[in-house]
Amino acid sequence: MEPSRVGEANACRVVLLTPSARRAPRTRPAPRAFDTSKTQSDIRAAVQSIDLAPLMKPASIAVVGASRRMTRATRVVANLQRFGYAGRIFPINPRYADVLGLPCYPDLTSTPERADTVVVAIPAEHVPGVLRAAVAAGVRGAVVLSSGFAEAGPEGRRRQSELERLASDHGLLICGPNCYGVFNIRLGAATFSADVAEPLRPGGVGIVSQSGGFSHAIGEYLMQQRQVGLSYIVSCGNQAGLTVEDYVEFLVEDDGTTVVGAFVEGFKKPEQFRRAAARAREVSKPIVVLKVGRSENARQAMLAHTGSLAGTPEIIEAMLRQSGVVRVSSINEMIDTLALLSASARGTPGAWRVGILSGLGGECGRASDAADRAGVELPPLSPASVERMRSFMPDFANPRNPVDGTGAMYEDARLFPQLFDTLLHDDAIDVLAVNLRVNVPKLGGPAPSRQFSQAMSEALRGGANRLVVAFSSFAGGDLDPEVIHTLAGAGVPFLESTETAMLALRNAREHRRFLEQPIAASAEPVTPRAVARPLGRGVLANAEAARMLTDFGIRLAETIPVKDAEEAVRAADSVGYPVVIKIDSPDIAHKTDVGGVRVGCRDAAAVRAAVADVLQAVHRQSPAARLDGVLVQRMVAGGTEMILGVKTDPLFGPAVVCGFGGIFVEQLHDVSVRVPPVGRAEALAMIDELRGAALLRGARGRAVADVDALADAIVRLAALAEVHRPSLRALDINPLLVLDAGQGVVAVDWLIEIA
Amino acid sequence: MEPSRVGEANACRVVLLTPSARRAPRTRPAPRAFDTSKTQSDIRAAVQSIDLAPLMKPASIAVVGASRRMTRATRVVANLQRFGYAGRIFPINPRYADVLGLPCYPDLTSTPERADTVVVAIPAEHVPGVLRAAVAAGVRGAVVLSSGFAEAGPEGRRRQSELERLASDHGLLICGPNCYGVFNIRLGAATFSADVAEPLRPGGVGIVSQSGGFSHAIGEYLMQQRQVGLSYIVSCGNQAGLTVEDYVEFLVEDDGTTVVGAFVEGFKKPEQFRRAAARAREVSKPIVVLKVGRSENARQAMLAHTGSLAGTPEIIEAMLRQSGVVRVSSINEMIDTLALLSASARGTPGAWRVGILSGLGGECGRASDAADRAGVELPPLSPASVERMRSFMPDFANPRNPVDGTGAMYEDARLFPQLFDTLLHDDAIDVLAVNLRVNVPKLGGPAPSRQFSQAMSEALRGGANRLVVAFSSFAGGDLDPEVIHTLAGAGVPFLESTETAMLALRNAREHRRFLEQPIAASAEPVTPRAVARPLGRGVLANAEAARMLTDFGIRLAETIPVKDAEEAVRAADSVGYPVVIKIDSPDIAHKTDVGGVRVGCRDAAAVRAAVADVLQAVHRQSPAARLDGVLVQRMVAGGTEMILGVKTDPLFGPAVVCGFGGIFVEQLHDVSVRVPPVGRAEALAMIDELRGAALLRGARGRAVADVDALADAIVRLAALAEVHRPSLRALDINPLLVLDAGQGVVAVDWLIEIA
Repeated sequence: MEPSRVGEANACRVVLLTPSARRAPRTRPAPRAFDTSKTQSDIRAAVQSIDLAPLMKPASIAVVGASRRMTRATRVVANLQRFGYAGRIFPINPRYADVLGLPCYPDLTSTPERADTVVVAIPAEHVPGVLRAAVAAGVRGAVVLSSGFAEAGPEGRRRQSELERLASDHGLLICGPNCYGVFNIRLGAATFSADVAEPLRPGGVGIVSQSGGFSHAIGEYLMQQRQVGLSYIVSCGNQAGLTVEDYVEFLVEDDGTTVVGAFVEGFKKPEQFRRAAARAREVSKPIVVLKVGRSENARQAMLAHTGSLAGTPEIIEAMLRQSGVVRVSSINEMIDTLALLSASARGTPGAWRVGILSGLGGECGRASDAADRAGVELPPLSPASVERMRSFMPDFANPRNPVDGTGAMYEDARLFPQLFDTLLHDDAIDVLAVNLRVNVPKLGGPAPSRQFSQAMSEALRGGANRLVVAFSSFAGGDLDPEVIHTLAGAGVPFLESTETAMLALRNAREHRRFLEQPIAASAEPVTPRAVARPLGRGVLANAEAARMLTDFGIRLAETIPVKDAEEAVRAADSVGYPVVIKIDSPDIAHKTDVGGVRVGCRDAAAVRAAVADVLQAVHRQSPAARLDGVLVQRMVAGGTEMILGVKTDPLFGPAVVCGFGGIFVEQLHDVSVRVPPVGRAEALAMIDELRGAALLRGARGRAVADVDALADAIVRLAALAEVHRPSLRALDINPLLVLDAGQGVVAVDWLIEIA
Repeated sequence: MEPSRVGEANACRVVLLTPSARRAPRTRPAPRAFDTSKTQSDIRAAVQSIDLAPLMKPASIAVVGASRRMTRATRVVANLQRFGYAGRIFPINPRYADVLGLPCYPDLTSTPERADTVVVAIPAEHVPGVLRAAVAAGVRGAVVLSSGFAEAGPEGRRRQSELERLASDHGLLICGPNCYGVFNIRLGAATFSADVAEPLRPGGVGIVSQSGGFSHAIGEYLMQQRQVGLSYIVSCGNQAGLTVEDYVEFLVEDDGTTVVGAFVEGFKKPEQFRRAAARAREVSKPIVVLKVGRSENARQAMLAHTGSLAGTPEIIEAMLRQSGVVRVSSINEMIDTLALLSASARGTPGAWRVGILSGLGGECGRASDAADRAGVELPPLSPASVERMRSFMPDFANPRNPVDGTGAMYEDARLFPQLFDTLLHDDAIDVLAVNLRVNVPKLGGPAPSRQFSQAMSEALRGGANRLVVAFSSFAGGDLDPEVIHTLAGAGVPFLESTETAMLALRNAREHRRFLEQPIAASAEPVTPRAVARPLGRGVLANAEAARMLTDFGIRLAETIPVKDAEEAVRAADSVGYPVVIKIDSPDIAHKTDVGGVRVGCRDAAAVRAAVADVLQAVHRQSPAARLDGVLVQRMVAGGTEMILGVKTDPLFGPAVVCGFGGIFVEQLHDVSVRVPPVGRAEALAMIDELRGAALLRGARGRAVADVDALADAIVRLAALAEVHRPSLRALDINPLLVLDAGQGVVAVDWLIEIA
């Protein structure tokens, strides 16, 4: 197995984490400087590619277990013939001389040429032996359809580990086991076990799924009902060899794929996924992900299903979002989003102001609500359009967006083309969405959408400088192939249900905006003063935690740890009154909750009383807590209480969390999350997405807060989280006071936990 | 037109607001006492019924404009024949002797018997004349399909007002104009213009829609694809005579209707709707409403479409929710909810713990996420089920809910029946939801769902003590009629897409819970000390507003209005230090925002300084504001800041709003809303649905707040809002301090606006 050369055109490769470089990072970061413009992969890992072509574009396919009975393996042979696969097919079975008219071979070494890939659909216990034979025969790809591996008890897990060894030790490209396999639609290379309906429709959508059933259902639905073309359908199964990340990366690099759709239960190699997404950005190719596992029950279900660890939902969501991945939450939304992106890949609007045309008055209000919920803008029509519409629809008192074509649209055949044309040339609109009912009409019954779609096709014949989509009010029922064909021919995707149509438009717009954002320019790298690995484990002592923060330039309220009241008075004299007295214990996360804080101590007597108070309160309420003494802290006046923190997922690593502080606001979970690296622009976006952000910007008569300093603290914390990965388990600054503009931020309380 | 007698069985009636009583309220409230257990209608309006039967259950139908050409009117005659309408049909046209084989009459007076109802599908300008003739001939119902009325400019509006007069002066029951009409499915009485597909399927779902297109689309889809039976399809159109409320009330009283589905752009008679909903509760009949108009753009669109005023979304939502109405937000959710409720009306589960069975491993995680989002509980399986499953599925390491039947379910025919049976008898589960793919199979292709549905039908033959539903993973494509038929025969509704299936289950559960709630017992009525109609208009002077609140027993912080600093000092001496000094101006809603408040004045000097300060600040920041002087208020220590208020919708009247105070929390819109009357239980529910409610109950080491007193204040404010309706436009208490348990609540600032 040869590594393909870097940058080689059309190379089919997966990227493995190895010490050798795939491409040199544009600038090598200085030691200890953390350039926030680079992905983690640039900083931490260099890469190498392997060639997936034998599996994904096989020139010849062996099918082990094909026979004269219609077994699963025989069906694979039949499918390859049915779909017109032009490569060589080698049925493998010692008992037969031929199968389905093809010469049959006793084993993998007897084929007239070495097969690129082998399909294995035999009882699980025989699979490892067959794969060993495949490796010996020089076969490079293996699609293992059989079940009975990691999903099936200890014996199955043992069998799966044999497959894993074959993949890692011999470089065998294994798809599965326990999967539907790989279907290269263009080649008709159906190393795939599901009975996909004909005709195939080759095109740009590549689908990869950890659920075989969904890979089939989504792929078939797109091709048959929506007439959307596909490049690949891949069902990953148990991922003994290749994982979802490998296939996504392959599809991103594949020239025949313009959009990638992935159904994901759990990532296995998040770094590789991020690299694939970064590459997808370079080639402007959208990746649409339906990620399961927001709920605890789903995480348990997936562990049972494919052994996937779902990961921390908020951290994965942040990672996907920062990578520009389009996230969808239902299969209908996924299908609509893929259909739209596959059509709009050919020409995308500058802005995304949507004009809607419907012949259903009731739809206009509903579509407005759905657009509003999805965050899709429906601007007012241009005065020219309003005037023009009034000229040919005298009863239109006040044409508006959404445009109600009224029942007249069905009665007067000239009306729809005029309405469509008017909106098509309206400068106030970038995307035109036409509401049509497109179910198969009754035999001999009216089929107005056939005329409407014809009219759209004719109007678009000259080429239109904007995206046009059609959508139905709800999903259900077979679609009229005649209408869909006309629309598809005109480059108009059809979307089902107003709700998912609006979500798809929102998704496409967000992806386009992501592509248009400049890749964060080399921001000021964060240079820590020092990087001392923490000595302790668990919750760090206050002083050590403080040092870790100050090493990264995060300003803390002046704080002196002391052992007793007299020391406290001396400390207070030195930091200046008024002071705060707090209990100092690694076991107490919320000091206020146990009476461990006294604010506003204005003199020595108050300090002595406060020290006695907090010690007594903590002895009473948390008698088992270890006490390091008390902390004397200079009281900081004013400012807005925020929370800044780091959470860590075992696989995905750290994420930075920012939100407003105070117990009421905490209750409302108004927080934003990012995975490092976080540059300045991202940090500002993080602040602005908080629902209370306006308050920092001076709403309600408040002073403008030092948002720049807050953003800077976020960037620094993200750098800290990267440097101290993986030992840093959690970090909390609560509160971080954001002072008035120009005054900076001050951490008042902090807590760091080390794994 | 005779009013039907009160309580008459099976009467078809609408209820009008008139002085005579429909049924006597159970107890007459004492004067000035506001019994919070009664609906507004009991208190304010008594009712009278009229008979809708001539329109809804016509024994004979005249069709004006039927001819030998296939006009819209001719199509109505053809439809009546096609659907087997057994009553008499009278085509009306002076130019023909017969139409479609039926004798044709020159006018409405020539028919051999008086027609119950007349269908009018002729140009708009001729409609008023025909309806006058209908009234003269004694015809009692009129379905006006024609367009060209209120939706079509000033001339149309004038025409519509003629229809309105015929309805109000002569009691003509007008459906429309600009509608699809009324379709009594059981009778085949298609006074309905859309081309509904055969066969009709009579049953319990009654649909009423302000959009003709949706009435047809939803009704047809339910009958054809889902095999759900309908009682009526009604398209309201412009509502010149009867309105959506009339039809809903009719369907609630109709014995043949078990579930009501309504597509509503705007209510016209909310009081009548609330009465219909109250009656629906008595007869345990669900009303499902898709209400358009949450977005501003939708409200404008609807004004253009049917002239409907959408109303204030939050107030309508509160009204619907308190009335036990099932709210849905998409057509797919509406269809699934109607299908489920129509099946579950026959037998509803005690609790709603849902068990899911799927043959798609990938669905298990997805369904868990969807259930979690919808708030549907998927409990662990009982140990007995786990053990039994392990016995026949040895590879099931750990069967759990959702149950993954795995690929084995498709290979071993014995497996599915065993899995289904196990779950059907699992005590931990009340509802069993089976995930099936039910699209029409390829000719000759596998159709496993046919076997699965057969197995379900057989297992259910003995009668099962629980609700069983089937659902697909996504919506789209024709459904296999064989499978749907088998399921429907077994009482199993089929739902499309996991997401809407889970929403439908949630909706059905919430409706059942609503029915199970005791109708609020006669709570302590609120007896105001006095009810003085406010003298002023606009924003009331502080003292008058204060009086209005204290009349209803709402406690205010002691506050003295004064004119100058010396008066302020005397007032402060009398209320006791420390005091707060505030500007007193009806023009300043947010005193703090303009520097109009000084807190913590501890002596006379501080009071003098504060008075000068606030006057100066307000002169500077709001020079145009009218000043009534300043307010001296005793400072209240401690407590949680809340907001309590009243908002008013011009049609729906007042609603009470409760939320946490403080500008950060306000930014997050964590509020709950109710329409009066609000009893104690409802007030407590209102508090508990706030996301921050736990804080009042003592979370995070806080003292328990006086939630009872807060609930009491809500009840009192609701009573105030009812008494001062409709003059009260808005009321704001901000903040209302909720003190520790037993200490009550204190309003610190308030503002009342009178229309």
